[in-house]
Order: sequence, then structure tokens, then C-alpha cells
Amino acid sequence: MKRRNFLATAGAGLAAGAVASPAIAQSNPEIRWRLTSGFPKSLDTIYGGADFLAKYVSEATEGKFQIQPFAAGEIVGTFQAADAVSSGTVEMAHTAAYYYVGKDPTFAAAAAVPFTLNARQLNAWQYHGGGIGLVNEFMAKHNLYALPGGNTGTQMGGWFRKEIKTVEDLKGLKMRIAGIAGQVMAKLGVIPQQVAGGDIYPSLERGTIDAAEWIGPYDDEKLGFQKVAPFYYYPGFWEGGLTLHFMFNKAKWESLPKHYKAIVESAAMAANQDMLAKYDAKNPAALRSLVGAGAQLRPFSAEILDAAFKATNEVYAEISAQNADFKKLIDSLRAFRNEEYLWFQVAEYAFDSYMIRARTRG
Amino acid sequence: MKRRNFLATAGAGLAAGAVASPAIAQSNPEIRWRLTSGFPKSLDTIYGGADFLAKYVSEATEGKFQIQPFAAGEIVGTFQAADAVSSGTVEMAHTAAYYYVGKDPTFAAAAAVPFTLNARQLNAWQYHGGGIGLVNEFMAKHNLYALPGGNTGTQMGGWFRKEIKTVEDLKGLKMRIAGIAGQVMAKLGVIPQQVAGGDIYPSLERGTIDAAEWIGPYDDEKLGFQKVAPFYYYPGFWEGGLTLHFMFNKAKWESLPKHYKAIVESAAMAANQDMLAKYDAKNPAALRSLVGAGAQLRPFSAEILDAAFKATNEVYAEISAQNADFKKLIDSLRAFRNEEYLWFQVAEYAFDSYMIRARTRG
Repeated sequence: MKRRNFLATAGAGLAAGAVASPAIAQSNPEIRWRLTSGFPKSLDTIYGGADFLAKYVSEATEGKFQIQPFAAGEIVGTFQAADAVSSGTVEMAHTAAYYYVGKDPTFAAAAAVPFTLNARQLNAWQYHGGGIGLVNEFMAKHNLYALPGGNTGTQMGGWFRKEIKTVEDLKGLKMRIAGIAGQVMAKLGVIPQQVAGGDIYPSLERGTIDAAEWIGPYDDEKLGFQKVAPFYYYPGFWEGGLTLHFMFNKAKWESLPKHYKAIVESAAMAANQDMLAKYDAKNPAALRSLVGAGAQLRPFSAEILDAAFKATNEVYAEISAQNADFKKLIDSLRAFRNEEYLWFQVAEYAFDSYMIRARTRG
Repeated sequence: MKRRNFLATAGAGLAAGAVASPAIAQSNPEIRWRLTSGFPKSLDTIYGGADFLAKYVSEATEGKFQIQPFAAGEIVGTFQAADAVSSGTVEMAHTAAYYYVGKDPTFAAAAAVPFTLNARQLNAWQYHGGGIGLVNEFMAKHNLYALPGGNTGTQMGGWFRKEIKTVEDLKGLKMRIAGIAGQVMAKLGVIPQQVAGGDIYPSLERGTIDAAEWIGPYDDEKLGFQKVAPFYYYPGFWEGGLTLHFMFNKAKWESLPKHYKAIVESAAMAANQDMLAKYDAKNPAALRSLVGAGAQLRPFSAEILDAAFKATNEVYAEISAQNADFKKLIDSLRAFRNEEYLWFQVAEYAFDSYMIRARTRG
């Protein structure tokens, strides 16, 4: 009040301008945040989600709120991103929550787990099925707040050195696959392996591993797997859709002015939409190119899918018996899934089915 | 400079606050726009896209940029919305561009035309396939600028009083269906009818019309069609996905400060994502309820789909011969479609196929 009283005596014209300025200065504070991505810049589509958000937030605030993205490893590695955000080392991350399955399997259920939802259904669950609320009940226990920030669509089942027709063919197979998907595959006799992205190609080439899952055609093409493991299986039943998240340090998130929160929420939702559109636009040409370069497309057999579905339900029961947070999420996802496919099998599936048949007729 | 010089003499502390205020006042101008929706408020999902945008834009600008949505008919009717925006009567609309097919069939190609793309593919085309640019080359000729602002997903094929098994069964059928879809159906012997939403039920009840297409389960349920035309066909092959648009008066759009444009672009993209998620979340329960109330689900026969596909290609050739703008859009959409289904038939379709089979096994 002292300052205002002083100004009031300095003349009406001046006072009008000056009185307004404290409110405005307060409402557009200068904020600089660091974002650690779970991905290298070479994965431009998935890494690009962080750039997309940062650009929009900066533009919307005329550069007052700056988020600077760093690639995995520049500040902390992929597997340290959640901890770095939780502790406040960085304000936020853009990553796949299943990388933190070792802390708690519930992180995986927030990102992608076998035989649940496709990308559209994941968004329906998140935005209109209570998903964001459920995920954040859990995230809060880790001092995190998370918003959906991208989706890959259904991923591929990965690259195999040999054809895999039966469950018997999977026995003893060393496959680069992690988390809950790895637990499911282990029930089928696979020996899950942890291999960093850059080491997959040489491991397949040397035969240290027999198979590896990565993402889908656009990203897979960059690594040249078809040269060393030509059998390219689908679908990646453990990732019908993968939700990437923008993860915020909870206290930092809550400290944002309300309109900055609105700007970030809207930008995150747009980034979520944009990544899926980008994957959908880029995957067809990459698939064509991979097949031209020798990739041999193979669907997983019904026998393998059925065995994996059964193993998945067992894994969910085992984890749920010990982890109430996981149970809450997986029960919600599975109930939602059963409802969604009731509808998707009608108009959506019939339209796609016809268009696929029409396409092959030219 | 005069004002600044004056302030500089008034003391350093005061100058710092006051010098900042003119720039800030200029950068957050107070703007009030009116939006005319193409829809009544009773269609809460599709009408809700306008509210969603308005809320986010207001929050992001701390109430400085206010967009007030009006339902169809409050300012102008559905079919006058594009003209009202073009002339500047209102600054913007939220509507389906195919309502303006009478002005130019190219408007329809921007929204939904038979046998093209599903919702995800439409977004891929729009955001990463050059679609927004192509649409706006055309929109500019009408003094409009348009951004995607919602999607319904694949619509249903509508409600029929009698079963329709063959193309012969369609002959002489009076069906409420409009635009390019109506032209296609006319080639199959259907007599397309123009009937406003509120008049469809009594027209079906009296037998003035034999069939009517509307949207999908969630919206259709509100109108109770199953009581008077119980055969509920799928898919609505003329709307594999329907893009709603936010349409702006071009000069008004261009007059926005850069950061307001960024806020609106981000909010429009979020609204686009949100509407599809909302439809996907709401349709399953509505479908269940409709079937419980007597709706009889029927797929269109292969004979009907094949005849409609052939008729569609004829209609596209006829319009393209006379309209270069339409040709440019439809050629782009069809080329993109052929690439998209190359990819969608692999991982996406295989995942959905398995989940649908798994669901029916319980």
C-alpha cells in the first residue's frame, strides 16, 4: 500500500499505468524449467514431443515461461528421469513411465501393459474415463504429477532371427524385452534381456540375443534390424498403444500460476495428439522401405497370442495380489477395454476392414 | 520516448515497474469474439468442442481473450455459419465444413467424404500430411481460415425401417442423407432427403422417410430412433471420421497477436483430441443401451459396400472434372489413404482383431 499511495500522489496518468504493472508482472512471471527426456534426439518423433511442448509454451507466454529439453543422458539417463523429477533436480521429464517399473509396477500400467487399450482407447480412458486422476493418485506418492504427452500407436512385435510359429519355438529364446511384457514372455519360455537401444543391433548380429522389440517401422528403420533379424512380427501385443507422459515435480507443478497450468495442459494435450499423428504419417513409408530392404512381415500365431493372453492374466493376478495401486489401475484399464471393444468392433472395425480389402483390390 | 524520459526522472524503482507496463498492456489486449456453433447444445459432445476451446483460451489469457459460443440458431443457423464468418458478422464458427457443400463441394472434402480416412488417419493427414495447408488454400478463397477442432470417429450407417440386404433393397428408399454421400446413395437408387435433426424422428414415424443417418450411438440415443426404425446399420462409410473445424474470419485470425494465435492453435488441437476421446468413452454404453432398447445391429452387405465404393469413385471423377480445388483435396486424401492402410492393416488391425476375439471369449 505504501508504494501505491506514493504513486497516487504522482499524478493520475502515471498512477494508472503504474498501478496496473504489479498485477501484470505477477501474472506473467519469468520461469525457466529444465526437462529431461527419456529419449535420444535421433528418435525425432518420440523425442519431438518435448520440443513441441516447449515451443508452444514459450510462444503462448511470449517467452516468459521457458522449458528447455535435454536428451536422455545430458542431465540424467532414461532410467533416472523419474527420480530426478521427484527430487527436484529437474522440474519435469518427458518419458515412458514403464521405465520406472523397477520402482513400482504401477508405473508400467500408466504407460503400456499387454492386451489392454489401443491409442484412441487410452486417450478415452485418460481424458474421459478417469485415467488421469487414477494415474495421479499413484504419481503423487512419488512426488510427481503426470499428463499424457504422446502415443506411438500399436507397436510392432519386434525382430527375430528365426521364424517363430509355436510357443515351443519361443522356449529359450533370448529376447530384448523388459518390464511386465518381459514377465509375460518369461512364462512362455523366453529369457528376457536388458539391452540398451544402441547395443541391440550388435547383440543381434553376434547372436548374443535372438530377438528384440523396439517401437515400430519409423524408428526401427533407423537401426537397420532387418539385416540381422529379418522376421518382423506383429502386433506388439504388450503395447497396443504406449502413452508417453510429461512428468512434473508435484510441488513445482502446483506452484505454477493458474494460467500457466492451462497453457501447459493444453500444450500437453496437443503434443499427445501431434505425436500419434506424426507416427501415423511416417510409419507407412518406413514399412514399405523396410520390406523393400528385406524385412519379412509375420503375424504372431493364434497359439502364441492365446498363450500370451493367458500368461498376461496370470501376471496381472500375481502383481495385483501384492500391489493395491497396480490393481486399481489394471482393473480400471481392463474394465474400460472390455467396454471399448464392444463399440470399436462395430463401426470402426467394419470401416477399417472394408478399406483394407478395398486397398488390396487397388 | 517522452513518457519514458519523464519516468526516468521519477526515480529508478518506479521507472522499472512503469517502463515494463506499456509493452505488457500491448501484448495482452482484451479481445471478445463471438463463435457460432453448427450444433445445438443438446449434442453436448460435438457442441462441447466450442466450450472447450473458449475455456482454455480464457484461462490461458487470464480472461483477456474471451470467445463466447452461441448454439446454432442463436445468431445464425447451421447452414449460414460459414457465410457469417466470411463476412465478419461473427469472428469464428465451430462446425462441420460439409454443411457448406452447396457453396462448393470442396468444403465437404475438408470434413468427411465417403471411403477416405478414419479419425487417426485424418489427423495424420491434417497435421503431418499437408492437409491443413491444402484446406486453407481453399478456405482463403472464402475469406476463412480453419483448424481441425474435433472428430466423431467412424459414424454409424443410420437407422432403417426395413432390413436392407442388397442394392435392389435400396431402390426408391427415401433416406435422410446429404451432400456427397447423398450423391453416392442416389447412384444406388436411394432418394436423398433433406431433413433437419429435430424432424427426423416424426418423419421416420410417419413413414415420410424410410431411413436416416445421424452420428453414432451416443448422439443417436437421444433421439430414440430405435423405436421407429430399428435396423441400425454400420459402418457409415461416408464418414470414416468427421473432422469438425474451428473456422475463423481470415482477417480477424491474422489480426491476432502471435502468442494468442499459439494459444488458439494449441487449444484447437487439444479440443480435437478431446472430442474424439469423449465420443470413444461415451459410445460403448450408448450402444449397449440402444441394443437393450430394441436396436438391431446390421452390417452393410459386401454387395452394398462394393456398389457404394464404385459409385463414390464415379462421383469423385465427376466433381473433379469440374472443380480443381476439390480434385486437389480428394487426390491428396485418397493417396494418403492408400498409404495409411498399408500400415494400419499390420500392427493396429492385428491388435484390434485379437482384442475383439478375446473379448467375446470373455
